[in-house]
Amino acid sequence: MTQHPKKDEKTVYQKRVADLRRKLADRSGMHSYAAWIIQPENRRYLSGFKAEDTQINESSGSLLIDGTRCLMVTDPRYGLEAKTDAVDFEVHVLNGDFADGFTNLIVKTGTHVLGFEEEYVTFSLYRKLTEKLECLPSPVIFEAINGVVESMREVKDEVEIKAMEKTADLMSEVIDEVIPELKAGATEREVAWRIESTARDRGADGMAFPPIVASGPNSALPHAVPSDRKLKAGEPIIIDVGARLNGYCSDMTRTVFLGDPESEFRIIYHTVRQAQLEALKAIRPGVESNAPDKIARDFITDAGFGDYFIHSLGHGVGLATHEGPRLGPLKPVTLKKGMVVTVEPGIYIPEKGGVRLEEMVVIEEDGPRVLTRNNHFYDFS
Amino acid sequence: MTQHPKKDEKTVYQKRVADLRRKLADRSGMHSYAAWIIQPENRRYLSGFKAEDTQINESSGSLLIDGTRCLMVTDPRYGLEAKTDAVDFEVHVLNGDFADGFTNLIVKTGTHVLGFEEEYVTFSLYRKLTEKLECLPSPVIFEAINGVVESMREVKDEVEIKAMEKTADLMSEVIDEVIPELKAGATEREVAWRIESTARDRGADGMAFPPIVASGPNSALPHAVPSDRKLKAGEPIIIDVGARLNGYCSDMTRTVFLGDPESEFRIIYHTVRQAQLEALKAIRPGVESNAPDKIARDFITDAGFGDYFIHSLGHGVGLATHEGPRLGPLKPVTLKKGMVVTVEPGIYIPEKGGVRLEEMVVIEEDGPRVLTRNNHFYDFS
Repeated sequence: MTQHPKKDEKTVYQKRVADLRRKLADRSGMHSYAAWIIQPENRRYLSGFKAEDTQINESSGSLLIDGTRCLMVTDPRYGLEAKTDAVDFEVHVLNGDFADGFTNLIVKTGTHVLGFEEEYVTFSLYRKLTEKLECLPSPVIFEAINGVVESMREVKDEVEIKAMEKTADLMSEVIDEVIPELKAGATEREVAWRIESTARDRGADGMAFPPIVASGPNSALPHAVPSDRKLKAGEPIIIDVGARLNGYCSDMTRTVFLGDPESEFRIIYHTVRQAQLEALKAIRPGVESNAPDKIARDFITDAGFGDYFIHSLGHGVGLATHEGPRLGPLKPVTLKKGMVVTVEPGIYIPEKGGVRLEEMVVIEEDGPRVLTRNNHFYDFS
Repeated sequence: MTQHPKKDEKTVYQKRVADLRRKLADRSGMHSYAAWIIQPENRRYLSGFKAEDTQINESSGSLLIDGTRCLMVTDPRYGLEAKTDAVDFEVHVLNGDFADGFTNLIVKTGTHVLGFEEEYVTFSLYRKLTEKLECLPSPVIFEAINGVVESMREVKDEVEIKAMEKTADLMSEVIDEVIPELKAGATEREVAWRIESTARDRGADGMAFPPIVASGPNSALPHAVPSDRKLKAGEPIIIDVGARLNGYCSDMTRTVFLGDPESEFRIIYHTVRQAQLEALKAIRPGVESNAPDKIARDFITDAGFGDYFIHSLGHGVGLATHEGPRLGPLKPVTLKKGMVVTVEPGIYIPEKGGVRLEEMVVIEEDGPRVLTRNNHFYDFS
């Protein structure tokens, strides 16, 4: 994703940093305000730095962005990677205690208000930093910046949409390869591993999330973990999978039957698929994000299954599998051109089974363009 | 790992909870003190609950343990799994806002002091909870419990040692299969994926950490990420890998040469291997954890490579890849029977290459028993 700029041309990262500065301009005057970005996807989005965090308390680096400077703060393990990836950032490699080194940078930059990601920073790190920063001759004030970079990430630029197309293509190809091979007697875990290994063989960085393969009664649990249960003919088998490619996630779900399903599941499947198609029709720029959810929910409710659609219609996807905007009944936002969202209604009958169908779409001027390949759907009408 | 107890026999989890209560007994009187455990490995260690957290701000559940009760707090996605895994815990499935539901449980249990894991809880979650809990008629005090459960996890019981043997066996078998196949021209990424897929095919839950395959100059970076660089004859190739099996991690490193290494790397390899063997001789119960590190470090320094051994000798392994005790120069602790640690000296010559050799051992009465299979070492004496 790193772009090498022509003369006088801004990189995609410079543009994003400029956007962030505009969004933060009304906070305390930018001359003394700095945003500290440690959340891995936000960090990558703004800087191009690709390293992941191995554990919550083992950060690979963070950004400090004020009105004029872009600093990348890391440690010796990641110094080289930071310089290679985050070309628009001044890389500071800290040895020793992070809180000490970071405090020095705060003093050096003259920061008085520090915007921080309170949903990602641990209490311990916050405590250690405030102990140092609040004791400075001119104490630093901490101010949460929740959702600022996240909201920027909701609308994808052209480079990102290309990346989303690629990761959706890869996952669709894997589904095309694996679904025709499914046989009764294979375990959920075996199928999940077959999907993951096929995705990796085809070049995925990794999976966007652990694959869900849920058969029979397990398919009634939206977040089932693949078990040693064997696939059986006639039962629903939910396959919910996504790959990560160049940092970007895909997310798609198919429900498969080996042999003919019982008539109840034919009706459920048909209901879910129709609800999905109706919801897709309603997605376009300017629409509130709860509207497509309501259309799918009303359709499922009218068919008599309203109590069994127990999650939202969909969510944004990008550098993270779950990001904004949420397509659910609550907290609506206005859909915009360039957003990439899932459309995934489901019906789950406890102890019997469930059906979920999920497409990933980019919102264009006239409506949604489906990025996941439109295949492996049944027509039970 | 779930044990079904005979009548009147305590499960391993009941024993661990009893140990935790003893350790916390001097804090504020146990009648009003509760420990809140949300860190995934600590949670699994105390309860048997196997689910992982998908993201830092997407917890699959937490434990609330006071003097008499063991509560497992989760949400509808994980309710069934909690009841199956955490058999000694009273499972509370919260719908809606976590902070509200958790506050109700705190009131119900009459908790006045809440021990919390400040190195894992985000500032945001801490803030939301304190806003509610400090407004109660009888306000709740937050008190960090750092390292309490972690220190319990350092000494493994018999069931855990069996699990560590199994994960070390699995990883050793994979190394036995993959190392003889290595050929010049294969990329680091291809080899890393070959190792990962072989481990998964042999039943690993997953990798303990992303495999490191670092060749030539890349082997001079202890945390190198596998690249598209092709393996070449004569260069050092560091392979540092671990599997997760039934939750337990393995960790082992071999340095491989395709064809004869240059004489400098023969000397470096021999130095690292001798340093490792000397350090292993010094490991036994009662020894301070910095002593084996000093022995390896002195040996390497005497050979003229002291500036190039840039990390600690080793670390504890268990439910996490990196846990206590650390075998390094600082903060020594006394080694105990039942600890499982790595012994991994290394020499890294910038821009040229490095050698690291790592065994995972359990500390027994008479000394270390190597769990990783003692193979694929060269004799360059």
